[in-house]
Amino acid sequence: MGSEVYVAGVGMTKFGKSPLSLPELMVEAASRAILDARINTIDYVLIGVMSVEEFTGESNIAAVIADRLGLSGVPSSRVETASSTGSAVFESAFYAVASGYHKNVLIIAGEKMTHLPTSRTTKILAEVIEQNERNHGASMPALAAMITQRYQHEAKLSAERMQAILAKVAIKNHYNGTLNPYAQFRKVISETDYFGSKWVSFPLRTFDCAPITDGAVAVVLTSDKKLIRVSGLGHATDTLAVRHRDSFTSFKSTRLAALQAYNMAKVNPQEISLAEIHDAFTPFEIIGMEDLGFYPPKQGWKAIEEGETTIKGKLPINPSGGLKARGHPVGASGLAQIAEVVWQLRGEFEPSRQVTGARIGLTQNIGGLANNNLVTILERTDFYRPVPVFWKPLFKAGNIESKLISDQPPSLDGGTLETFTTLYSTPEGVPSPLTLGFVRLNDGKIILARSRQENLKIGQQVKVAKEGDLFYFQGISLPGSMKENVGQLISRLLTLKKEKGEEA
Amino acid sequence: MGSEVYVAGVGMTKFGKSPLSLPELMVEAASRAILDARINTIDYVLIGVMSVEEFTGESNIAAVIADRLGLSGVPSSRVETASSTGSAVFESAFYAVASGYHKNVLIIAGEKMTHLPTSRTTKILAEVIEQNERNHGASMPALAAMITQRYQHEAKLSAERMQAILAKVAIKNHYNGTLNPYAQFRKVISETDYFGSKWVSFPLRTFDCAPITDGAVAVVLTSDKKLIRVSGLGHATDTLAVRHRDSFTSFKSTRLAALQAYNMAKVNPQEISLAEIHDAFTPFEIIGMEDLGFYPPKQGWKAIEEGETTIKGKLPINPSGGLKARGHPVGASGLAQIAEVVWQLRGEFEPSRQVTGARIGLTQNIGGLANNNLVTILERTDFYRPVPVFWKPLFKAGNIESKLISDQPPSLDGGTLETFTTLYSTPEGVPSPLTLGFVRLNDGKIILARSRQENLKIGQQVKVAKEGDLFYFQGISLPGSMKENVGQLISRLLTLKKEKGEEA
Repeated sequence: MGSEVYVAGVGMTKFGKSPLSLPELMVEAASRAILDARINTIDYVLIGVMSVEEFTGESNIAAVIADRLGLSGVPSSRVETASSTGSAVFESAFYAVASGYHKNVLIIAGEKMTHLPTSRTTKILAEVIEQNERNHGASMPALAAMITQRYQHEAKLSAERMQAILAKVAIKNHYNGTLNPYAQFRKVISETDYFGSKWVSFPLRTFDCAPITDGAVAVVLTSDKKLIRVSGLGHATDTLAVRHRDSFTSFKSTRLAALQAYNMAKVNPQEISLAEIHDAFTPFEIIGMEDLGFYPPKQGWKAIEEGETTIKGKLPINPSGGLKARGHPVGASGLAQIAEVVWQLRGEFEPSRQVTGARIGLTQNIGGLANNNLVTILERTDFYRPVPVFWKPLFKAGNIESKLISDQPPSLDGGTLETFTTLYSTPEGVPSPLTLGFVRLNDGKIILARSRQENLKIGQQVKVAKEGDLFYFQGISLPGSMKENVGQLISRLLTLKKEKGEEA
Repeated sequence: MGSEVYVAGVGMTKFGKSPLSLPELMVEAASRAILDARINTIDYVLIGVMSVEEFTGESNIAAVIADRLGLSGVPSSRVETASSTGSAVFESAFYAVASGYHKNVLIIAGEKMTHLPTSRTTKILAEVIEQNERNHGASMPALAAMITQRYQHEAKLSAERMQAILAKVAIKNHYNGTLNPYAQFRKVISETDYFGSKWVSFPLRTFDCAPITDGAVAVVLTSDKKLIRVSGLGHATDTLAVRHRDSFTSFKSTRLAALQAYNMAKVNPQEISLAEIHDAFTPFEIIGMEDLGFYPPKQGWKAIEEGETTIKGKLPINPSGGLKARGHPVGASGLAQIAEVVWQLRGEFEPSRQVTGARIGLTQNIGGLANNNLVTILERTDFYRPVPVFWKPLFKAGNIESKLISDQPPSLDGGTLETFTTLYSTPEGVPSPLTLGFVRLNDGKIILARSRQENLKIGQQVKVAKEGDLFYFQGISLPGSMKENVGQLISRLLTLKKEKGEEA
């Protein structure tokens, strides 16, 4: 290994709807980070932005920003991994310093989104979704909603209890946002506000989804010893298609990234003082808590119910307000998470906002629909942490092998409904509302399909048909009859088989 | 410093108009590079692509490609610096290996461009140009044409001689392309072909400009010792606006990058066996030859006239055919240059295509209009090269400080025409043909302005007016009278001053 890598300075703009252009936001964040770092030279500039060409019609952004900063001459590159860009550009900067070729690297991540109509923004954001799932009309909230329904099913929670848990996440993060002057939303929300908010994609409401935001963050990394050291990095991809994954309710890309980061830092989940988790949707905070090893699978929700993750709880999660309340300028959020951890570890906040005694902090940043995730661990260098010579992580990532998958045409006789949602704000050109579901076919393959039916239930038998390029499914039990009458179901199946001329 | 970094394998697709999608092209190139590298594991995937969102409507490309390669799980990021993306992604991969954190890194760079109408492609490519210059209607060929006219003026060449020199560059690179099975164009062109080709932006013709191309290239870097080592890297930006530069005819970003690369590799220009130079426009090959220290300023053209840069000449330049004949998938070209140097250094080609005795090779890759350039040096590890303990480069980068610049409204009394062009294929929404010129105002500031006048001459006095947001200029000598009658000019100036009521 080359040099150790330290954080010399951080800075950010207020997140929200801004009159400033992306370069102006980036220059503001960079100026603050450089001032905070008290350095005189920058050797390398790395820019993180997700969709600058589509959001602003500008390209060549790395050169634009170097020029605007008065750093023309200094090398500058842009790094991008969809919504985990903020962490990925930090990772690239880490390698540049660790290699020994650069001493001070300036990282700036930002996004300018609020100036476009929401349907256009939704369309740009939906370009991260796998083509077949996108063609069926799946947006990010639709996929997140189906993951939520499946989580509720596997955790054996009632719909009411699941809703109350999601409400608690949103209320906690909005409360934390009131303490953070950079946050987009700084108002407390109540249960009444939460339950009064509109459905985006059932069972997710407006208050379950991170907003559209402008903003920028900057960090200076250095090889000179400073208080905060970058001690762990992890980065992993997963299949683009959600239907190709080994689980709907746990993200392999987080588990793999966490394993790498814990290994590199030689820490275990139990030693983490606070975490910033990618809550683009409230259920992702709970899944993240489990995938990072803080809580066992399908039990993270208990910590939410018991208030363990509040800013003064046992393990504060998203003390910044998270993506939910701080806002989510897509390319910047990962670096904003890192800035929050740096500030918390420095212990510079007023008592109400400060995580007490924070020594090691972690960030988890999701790219796309959890197919390019990063985990970053930072720690204070001024305390002694004993590490065994033969260190092995206690963190178990579980089975992280993908199944062998293929997109050969499936056999369409029927299958089981794995999860579903009704999407209310659909992408441009897609009818609204739209019901979507993942169906496990009888040959084991999973497909995404639309449905014209209401009153669906996870686990029910469905039949599937192809119309043009799209799949449609409907329940095999008679529409409207949602009692799980197994006898009825079997007799219906027998009838169906007879209709098809098969032996009963 | 951490590990040394070696090239384990390279691969590329045929460049040209392809029926394949970008992911398909990238997978093909990657498969070849992995086969060539004979490795069993990939630790990290880095993707280089310039404008994938705008060209193909896809984002999240790093995760898409990892998934397509069957590498889901492996970390993957995208790197971008406009048209130097191929070299910038190679640089990022270098740091990842040099840091000691990754052993085998797969780099894939590509672009898919030919499926869109040319005017749309031109518009996408023009987004790299500074806003004010873009607003005046400047495209990449227009800026390159003005640089060419200025070069001709400073090198004291006649228009006919300059044209003959550019023709020689195009003919040489097209000849080299006939030897390269991956090249887009594989036909010899004659002087007659060259002079018969259409004006794009005077004095540049179709045969002076790199084509629109689909293609992908892949390289595997490793910390295991191999025949080819990465010995030098340089990367530098320049001001986005061409009018803010210290010179029209030399690129500071190349000179700075070259200085860094020569210093890191501890080699001098005289030791380079062959170079791949970014000939997006034929004059850029000549300017590159000078900025890289192969020839003194404004004397590179002599080497072209004397045939020194042919594949069997003293210093072969663009033995691959260059961007001109190999083709220019914008995000891929830099990595294609590196692949060519690797092959030449390995000495695996048939004699007609092989640069004899190649030991150290260099690539120079231009981002935007030369504001984010990279220089990469590769060398064989199986020969002894003595390096003095106290090594100093013989390469002089010249004055590389930017002037203090500002975009305060200029004083519009008049100035000198620094260079100009007439652009025939204008970007969407701009009238054609369009005459553009850089004018040095009397206060020293340079502006880009349009003109409605023909028969312009570099060095002539002009007056400037503002119409809306755009500047327009016209010669102070009477239109149509292009004899340089100094007496006439002075008397005209005196008249003008009198008209303005000043003391003569």
